[in-house]
Amino acid sequence: MIANIITIGDEILIGQVVDTNSAWIAEELNKIGVSVNRIESISDKHDDIIKALDNSISEVDLIILTGGLGPTNDDITKEALAKYFGSKFVRDKETLEKIEKFMEDRGIPIIEMNRQQADMPDNCKLLKNKVGSVPGMLFERDGKIIVSVPGVPYEMKYIIGSELIPFLKENKELPIIIHRTFMTIGGAESILAERLKPFEDSLPDNYSLAYLPSPGKVRIRLSAIGKDEDNLSLGFPEVENQLKLLLDKEFYGYDGVSIEEVVGILLKEGNFTISTAESCTGGDIANAITNIPGASDYYKGSVICYTNELKQELLKVSENDLKEHGAVSKQVVIQMANNVRKLLKTDFGIATSGITGPTGGTEEKPVGTVWIAITSPRTTLAFQYNFGNDRLRTISRTTLTALNLIRFEIEKIGTK
Amino acid sequence: MIANIITIGDEILIGQVVDTNSAWIAEELNKIGVSVNRIESISDKHDDIIKALDNSISEVDLIILTGGLGPTNDDITKEALAKYFGSKFVRDKETLEKIEKFMEDRGIPIIEMNRQQADMPDNCKLLKNKVGSVPGMLFERDGKIIVSVPGVPYEMKYIIGSELIPFLKENKELPIIIHRTFMTIGGAESILAERLKPFEDSLPDNYSLAYLPSPGKVRIRLSAIGKDEDNLSLGFPEVENQLKLLLDKEFYGYDGVSIEEVVGILLKEGNFTISTAESCTGGDIANAITNIPGASDYYKGSVICYTNELKQELLKVSENDLKEHGAVSKQVVIQMANNVRKLLKTDFGIATSGITGPTGGTEEKPVGTVWIAITSPRTTLAFQYNFGNDRLRTISRTTLTALNLIRFEIEKIGTK
Repeated sequence: MIANIITIGDEILIGQVVDTNSAWIAEELNKIGVSVNRIESISDKHDDIIKALDNSISEVDLIILTGGLGPTNDDITKEALAKYFGSKFVRDKETLEKIEKFMEDRGIPIIEMNRQQADMPDNCKLLKNKVGSVPGMLFERDGKIIVSVPGVPYEMKYIIGSELIPFLKENKELPIIIHRTFMTIGGAESILAERLKPFEDSLPDNYSLAYLPSPGKVRIRLSAIGKDEDNLSLGFPEVENQLKLLLDKEFYGYDGVSIEEVVGILLKEGNFTISTAESCTGGDIANAITNIPGASDYYKGSVICYTNELKQELLKVSENDLKEHGAVSKQVVIQMANNVRKLLKTDFGIATSGITGPTGGTEEKPVGTVWIAITSPRTTLAFQYNFGNDRLRTISRTTLTALNLIRFEIEKIGTK
Repeated sequence: MIANIITIGDEILIGQVVDTNSAWIAEELNKIGVSVNRIESISDKHDDIIKALDNSISEVDLIILTGGLGPTNDDITKEALAKYFGSKFVRDKETLEKIEKFMEDRGIPIIEMNRQQADMPDNCKLLKNKVGSVPGMLFERDGKIIVSVPGVPYEMKYIIGSELIPFLKENKELPIIIHRTFMTIGGAESILAERLKPFEDSLPDNYSLAYLPSPGKVRIRLSAIGKDEDNLSLGFPEVENQLKLLLDKEFYGYDGVSIEEVVGILLKEGNFTISTAESCTGGDIANAITNIPGASDYYKGSVICYTNELKQELLKVSENDLKEHGAVSKQVVIQMANNVRKLLKTDFGIATSGITGPTGGTEEKPVGTVWIAITSPRTTLAFQYNFGNDRLRTISRTTLTALNLIRFEIEKIGTK
């Protein structure tokens, strides 16, 4: 099955909004073996919608339209589809009740324009929208499927994920595809690809690997395609396991989990606590940890010291070491980690000190030089890196790396 | 002038990459009076590129293609364009030298495939690429312009911003457009729109306002269009000034500047320093401040206290107040701000304490309740908010609001 995605809305064409919906839809369709031929953003003019439908219907089996289903005068997609498919409008009772309740809850008087949102074409299947008031629409013609959903991302995701995908799986002959995504930190895509090449070459024909890199991280998706789910499931875990072993210490979790989530889970399981002493990351590690719901179960706090004076006063770093080795040094970062762990009475500690730039680099310690220390009940370790001359990238790579280092250490210790 | 944007690359069609290039291009084109008719993402197959060109050339005056100019076998856009325009390839000396130097610097042996990247169509204008090795290409046919640039965002931005836009301004009859973007925090789009309605209605016909909202912030773009730059420039400052006055305290700066940049500039100008004491924001404010290059001139450090115990121990918050009023209270947040300012010996201080959720809410203090205190040499002020039940949004809105509050205070004091 081949699909086109059409995004409707002037806000995309004036550059006000980045179309993130299409990438999400494309990834979900790919997972069930539907490939995307083209993604298109058009204005919310009637004629442009009709033209785009005409173009696409000759190309593909499935067209997904998003947007243009708003509450005011941009119900234009519905009108255009009704005209295209020769529909009459019928007021949908369930939708009307939802709209009325929505307005009532907010104390807004309902007007006829609001009620008209419940008028749906009589020759389409309505796709339930449990997170909003307006349902999606599914038309079929000559074996082709045309679907329209609202542009609001969470409504779009609900309707496509919970209504359309199950519908396609049930009613269309799609291949069976199994996926597993391996999350890694610390290995560049090219290095991982080289390491995995013999494994990739030895994979059966119906298996494939995809690399999905982002700064400091690479997601690796293993897929198997076939016609028989039982048969596929039989061999998959063994291949998964091989890949996990090859990814080694760069692998930290499955299927989109973040490193701060994994660290949080490990800390919680071990009944451990953590604190951070940050210089160059300036709170980025604390921020990552506390973005996770429930972080208060294991995170106590942090001391951020951007000056040498505060490193001495708050974290009791030796004045001598600061003078002799500089703030960006093994000696200093180890003391920061040890002392924040003591001061905040936690099991684990992380410390960072580095030169994020653009200024402050020297020949000996160029911009990008970073020291990270991690400390635990059994040891304190320090590591040096150079993350290059982009300030924000250095900060975020330091955070990812520090969290990955503390993960190793927590895993080694296990539980209290 | 009307344009289509075509993005080439399978990585977009499988949902691996979100197309952010097109929104950037669309916004830049809009600024010079070129409107975008359609944005399209297609595969890097030869026939699909030809078909997309054929479709677009009948619709618009300008086609911008991005992507498909990579180093390996995806030079497919160049081949397709050469075929489309009947070009011969000529090896471009400047490009070849750049490629050779790039490979040499990295100690990679150069092969013929690398050299072929310097083969450019003989009937196009090359658009210089000062941030990468491969130039952009500009073809003209029947008064229409077809441009191809690499997909790497910073190369694409350089070529379009520094080469194509000046070329279009010089060679095509475009309207003169003046823009000014007003950055605001704290006012919802609908509230600002209501406040500005009389102003908007009174604007001359050649003026327009655009609202560009994102969580917690609204950018408001004022544009004037005309044929005579001098004439336009004459009236614009007065209208700008009216808008600035109407936006009042929600306005914090112009043209994309961030609130943390503005706060940094004010602190630097006033020769001031700042520290933060964060509970619910967990380092997000410190992180925002230290993301700005040069932050070490005014930022000293922070204490992040996620537990009551640490609020007492590190920030000397009264045990009594913690028991009586709770950690999320005016009393506690004021002590946090005052004491971090004293402890870190800074001129200004910010403190936050709140319930970001999903758990921890009570009837009296539901999830989303946040207290922010700011302190300066002359006063300490505290404010209560409710930012709703999305954890990450509450954190980021608390940070924006706190930075905006400290901005008022620094502005009031001026300099030391």
